[in-house]
Amino acid sequence: MTSRDKHDRMANAIRFLSMDAVEKANSGHPGLPMGAADVATVLFTRFMRFDPKNPNWPNRDRFILSAGHGSMLLYSLLYLTGYEDMTIDEIKNFRQLGSKTAGHPEYKHADGIETTTGPLGQGLANSVGFALAERHLNTTYGDDLINHYTYVLAGDGCLMEGISQEALSLAGHLKLSKLIVFWDDNRITIDGAVSMSDSTDQCARFEASGWHTQRIDGHDPEAIAQAIEAAQASDKPSMIACRTTIGFGAPTRAGTSKAHGSPLGAEEIAGTRKALNWDSEPFSVPSDVLDAWRLTGLNAAKSCKSWQEHFNTLDAELKGEFERRFRGDLPAGFNEAIIEYKKKLSAEKPKVATRKSSEMALEVINGVVPDTVGGSADLTGSNNTKTSQTKPLTADDYSGRYIYYGIREHGMASAMNGLALHGGVIPYGGTFLTFSDYARPAMRLASLMHIRVAFVMTHDSIGLGEDGPTHQPVEHLAALRCIPNHYVMRPADAVEAVECWQAALESKDTPSTLALTRQNLPVLRTEHTDENKSARGAYELAGDSDAQVTIFATGSEVEIAMGAFDKLKAAGIAARVVSVPCMELFAKQSEEYQRAIIGNAQVKIAIEAGVRQGWDHLIGSDGIFIGMSTFGASGKIEDLYPHFGITADAAAEAAQKRLAA
Amino acid sequence: MTSRDKHDRMANAIRFLSMDAVEKANSGHPGLPMGAADVATVLFTRFMRFDPKNPNWPNRDRFILSAGHGSMLLYSLLYLTGYEDMTIDEIKNFRQLGSKTAGHPEYKHADGIETTTGPLGQGLANSVGFALAERHLNTTYGDDLINHYTYVLAGDGCLMEGISQEALSLAGHLKLSKLIVFWDDNRITIDGAVSMSDSTDQCARFEASGWHTQRIDGHDPEAIAQAIEAAQASDKPSMIACRTTIGFGAPTRAGTSKAHGSPLGAEEIAGTRKALNWDSEPFSVPSDVLDAWRLTGLNAAKSCKSWQEHFNTLDAELKGEFERRFRGDLPAGFNEAIIEYKKKLSAEKPKVATRKSSEMALEVINGVVPDTVGGSADLTGSNNTKTSQTKPLTADDYSGRYIYYGIREHGMASAMNGLALHGGVIPYGGTFLTFSDYARPAMRLASLMHIRVAFVMTHDSIGLGEDGPTHQPVEHLAALRCIPNHYVMRPADAVEAVECWQAALESKDTPSTLALTRQNLPVLRTEHTDENKSARGAYELAGDSDAQVTIFATGSEVEIAMGAFDKLKAAGIAARVVSVPCMELFAKQSEEYQRAIIGNAQVKIAIEAGVRQGWDHLIGSDGIFIGMSTFGASGKIEDLYPHFGITADAAAEAAQKRLAA
Repeated sequence: MTSRDKHDRMANAIRFLSMDAVEKANSGHPGLPMGAADVATVLFTRFMRFDPKNPNWPNRDRFILSAGHGSMLLYSLLYLTGYEDMTIDEIKNFRQLGSKTAGHPEYKHADGIETTTGPLGQGLANSVGFALAERHLNTTYGDDLINHYTYVLAGDGCLMEGISQEALSLAGHLKLSKLIVFWDDNRITIDGAVSMSDSTDQCARFEASGWHTQRIDGHDPEAIAQAIEAAQASDKPSMIACRTTIGFGAPTRAGTSKAHGSPLGAEEIAGTRKALNWDSEPFSVPSDVLDAWRLTGLNAAKSCKSWQEHFNTLDAELKGEFERRFRGDLPAGFNEAIIEYKKKLSAEKPKVATRKSSEMALEVINGVVPDTVGGSADLTGSNNTKTSQTKPLTADDYSGRYIYYGIREHGMASAMNGLALHGGVIPYGGTFLTFSDYARPAMRLASLMHIRVAFVMTHDSIGLGEDGPTHQPVEHLAALRCIPNHYVMRPADAVEAVECWQAALESKDTPSTLALTRQNLPVLRTEHTDENKSARGAYELAGDSDAQVTIFATGSEVEIAMGAFDKLKAAGIAARVVSVPCMELFAKQSEEYQRAIIGNAQVKIAIEAGVRQGWDHLIGSDGIFIGMSTFGASGKIEDLYPHFGITADAAAEAAQKRLAA
Repeated sequence: MTSRDKHDRMANAIRFLSMDAVEKANSGHPGLPMGAADVATVLFTRFMRFDPKNPNWPNRDRFILSAGHGSMLLYSLLYLTGYEDMTIDEIKNFRQLGSKTAGHPEYKHADGIETTTGPLGQGLANSVGFALAERHLNTTYGDDLINHYTYVLAGDGCLMEGISQEALSLAGHLKLSKLIVFWDDNRITIDGAVSMSDSTDQCARFEASGWHTQRIDGHDPEAIAQAIEAAQASDKPSMIACRTTIGFGAPTRAGTSKAHGSPLGAEEIAGTRKALNWDSEPFSVPSDVLDAWRLTGLNAAKSCKSWQEHFNTLDAELKGEFERRFRGDLPAGFNEAIIEYKKKLSAEKPKVATRKSSEMALEVINGVVPDTVGGSADLTGSNNTKTSQTKPLTADDYSGRYIYYGIREHGMASAMNGLALHGGVIPYGGTFLTFSDYARPAMRLASLMHIRVAFVMTHDSIGLGEDGPTHQPVEHLAALRCIPNHYVMRPADAVEAVECWQAALESKDTPSTLALTRQNLPVLRTEHTDENKSARGAYELAGDSDAQVTIFATGSEVEIAMGAFDKLKAAGIAARVVSVPCMELFAKQSEEYQRAIIGNAQVKIAIEAGVRQGWDHLIGSDGIFIGMSTFGASGKIEDLYPHFGITADAAAEAAQKRLAA
């Protein structure tokens, strides 16, 4: 058997596993795995360094299937190279409830899945984070410990999505030369030929942002190998346009949109078996082919073995720190540093915006947690995301811990996901809360993947003033709270700000959004507690248990709630104020705690400069809500709050009126 | 005075109005108006066709300030050229509550503001819709009636946002040669030099997608004029990179990020007055300069006058139809066609997916409403957005009514906004509901602008099955419902589908999202009514007023609610089913109607395959909710609904258990 024959048979194993799995599921996308099988086979047999027995080896090459609908390509590779949890039964159960082989690759469902993909462009943008983490950690740990490639397979859809531009322009600017993107240039989308909707010269586009590009025949193994070598040799990120035929081998559907997203059917599959000279039954890989693939897995693992041998020779402290970072644990002394700082705050009571108290908290955190890598989408001075420890990360110096992401909210959020997924770093990054809309698809994926990412969202209400309704979030707190597994934190003062940061960093499996003000706020938590009260999600800030009125509020409106409390008190009405820095954390407390905090006051009010949606579970559907029901307006903050009726007077009056009713 | 002197003084009028307004407001962005004043002056004095007295003249050239933070540039131009509502007092009230001169340009706040901008990249992407509408209407009405340019001023931020790539690649593909973009290439962003975060050769990028590009000195009037002429002569869309100095004229801040977004201060302003030789007091424009600008407005209006003269010679039917389309009224016979079709549905009771019943409704609508222009972000066959009347709109044939938007959800939504804003067309376009996240910033702006756009969002729940959680919306209904002025419609069957379409098209001031199923659903509204019950937002579908249990449901879950109703009935429990196709329309009904529909049943249940958030106002915070609290999963639909407990049995049991409690 010639080397080409061997290649073809190995690639065909991917093709038949994929088409047969899609056929059995009667659902899925055979076209991409069949078209990209040659590229994947060359990459995995000749270049990729990984170990199926140690799927989390920190220095493995990453393979990211940005075109996630081609999931059977990845599952086939994992099965063939010998990942133990990817059994042939899992392949047979493709797309069935409870299988590891979900319709699109799901992070943590099976070893070897580096990120959840499917929403197009996300894997490509994640990869910028992976490549950034690799270069950054390389500066700390050197070539012997962290020095790997990030490979991406992207489709036409990934490249048409706007996020691709944010990702590629950032990668080009930062000269991420170990990032290598294969573009599966099959000229087919769901609607038909790419030429129906696009005429872009993709290589020229990538080159315009500083990429090395090549165009090759994506079915020619030697061309693929040579291109990968040239890409590795380049000092720029590299894009290889691989001209392929979607559904390669299918007699009538190859090269058409009919190969993209549905089973080929018995007849077409029989024709493909004939055309590709493949006699095996579905899910049965000829032993010579399976052996060759398993040997690929064993060979790829050699670099892991030698890495491990070297790692074992290192001193315990270095090893321990390296392992801590990749476990995602926080360093010893973290909690103590937070408590010390909280004592200082309770004493000094700084009246600052929570964006500023967030910066002050980060100043403490970045000092004790070397893992953090911050940044902002061109709002550094407004988001207050940069601290004294975080010098810029640039193409000339990857040791920096601060990324100027540019005006790329979506690309930033997706790169942050990649940073977190790579391991060894904890990313945070900022923009205005209203522009969480731009970043939302990536924020959702962070929640779905159960990863720790901190989104710093400042200018969190009409309180930002004159920039007006385009910049004033009103629905964004509600819109983020409805995402499962996402902590939406809105601290009321400097103490809650650092407590929220602590809770965010201690939440390994949940991303957090910190909603922060532009306007100054007094410290309301004047008595120090070692306990992180904000981590309870809600707690009583003031008042008595026999209160007739309970006022719930978040962030900047807690000050207003305290004002209403004082007014009610002056009117002889017993009241309570409950600060609610994070509804989702509150929902995780014991029923008893929740019941006690919600309490039995006759009147329940919530104050939040946003829409009501999401508040009824605390105040009841008959509770009083003081907030927004329309978009905001351009004006001074001192005009806007009264204009929209969000004042202590309004809250106190509403409570009194209800009590009198 | 030389022509250059005159130009300079006219441009300086913009600069001083802008910096003085920002100074007075103590808030705003002087840098862009000062930098781009020369480009704007040449464009408005020599090229723009518009009439300050007829701001809505359909054939005016459009000027879109995509870099919306430079709003004072636009307000200055409107004041100077003689728009009556843009008085000097409005300029003095820049950024104050209630003024027409909001922080960012707000559509409908003042004449001459074509679109709301501020969120970066949106104006640029809107402009694709403007240019598309122009070419499309040109095929119907000819050069004499519709034949104008769309000019855009975009900043570095607009070009760094991913949406810019979606917009420019679509415009290039469709050869929108009357679209001319000025890039204010000032090399400054908020964080500092553009070179801190980007190295893209923007001209090369635009060229890669089929644009004509030029690089000029953005302070040289003749170079600007020649470039506009060359752009007009090109058969491609055109991008003119205008090298400018941000804050031009400010002695110490020009060319720095300090000129971008804050008042210059008294000293710097005095220095600028000296440097630019400008003696006038703040808000006082020298009479020669104001006269020259007002003459510009008068001259620009000549083309409007001759257009009007020609228009008056046309026959009444043509004029009437043209005017109807630009008023945004629906054609005569629309309501009758809907009623006829509903009668047919009640008789035939087609069991189809609501994405299919949406297509069937569109088949009727597109037949009687020539204004509609449909499309999809590469999911035509899945979104069912194409009907027999809508042949493709292509670069060779702009008369088509169907746009293959490509895999560009965000660009599509923003272009749809532009189509609606242009007038004369009614846009709709499709993607999967989960990818509404990609389109969300533009969808928000549609709501804020009070325009009629229909977003067709199919595959609206776990009901889509095997594609899994990345493709299964769970929070999206809630996340869209919390946007003010946005109708989220989720029809339960073919009758509600057409009723929702009718309501969406009849809502001139509110965009709509139609959430539609992949799975088939029976017709539940078997008795015909001429009345559009769905337009009530919620109505009783079945049951008696003495019910012990009321079941609220939307879309595909109304069938499940009916199943639970039957089970309860069999158990001897009186129940009601309320279908809730649109919560926002329901909230607009009389209190009496709302109270009657919500009713007084002892037990209230809601069933929706999404998160609970947003339901408590109907069922109470103690109501029973049958839905999702986590992300979905990959699997067959018949496995997923039971897996997540969304079944008629679960609903009936929960109701019985509560009744027994």
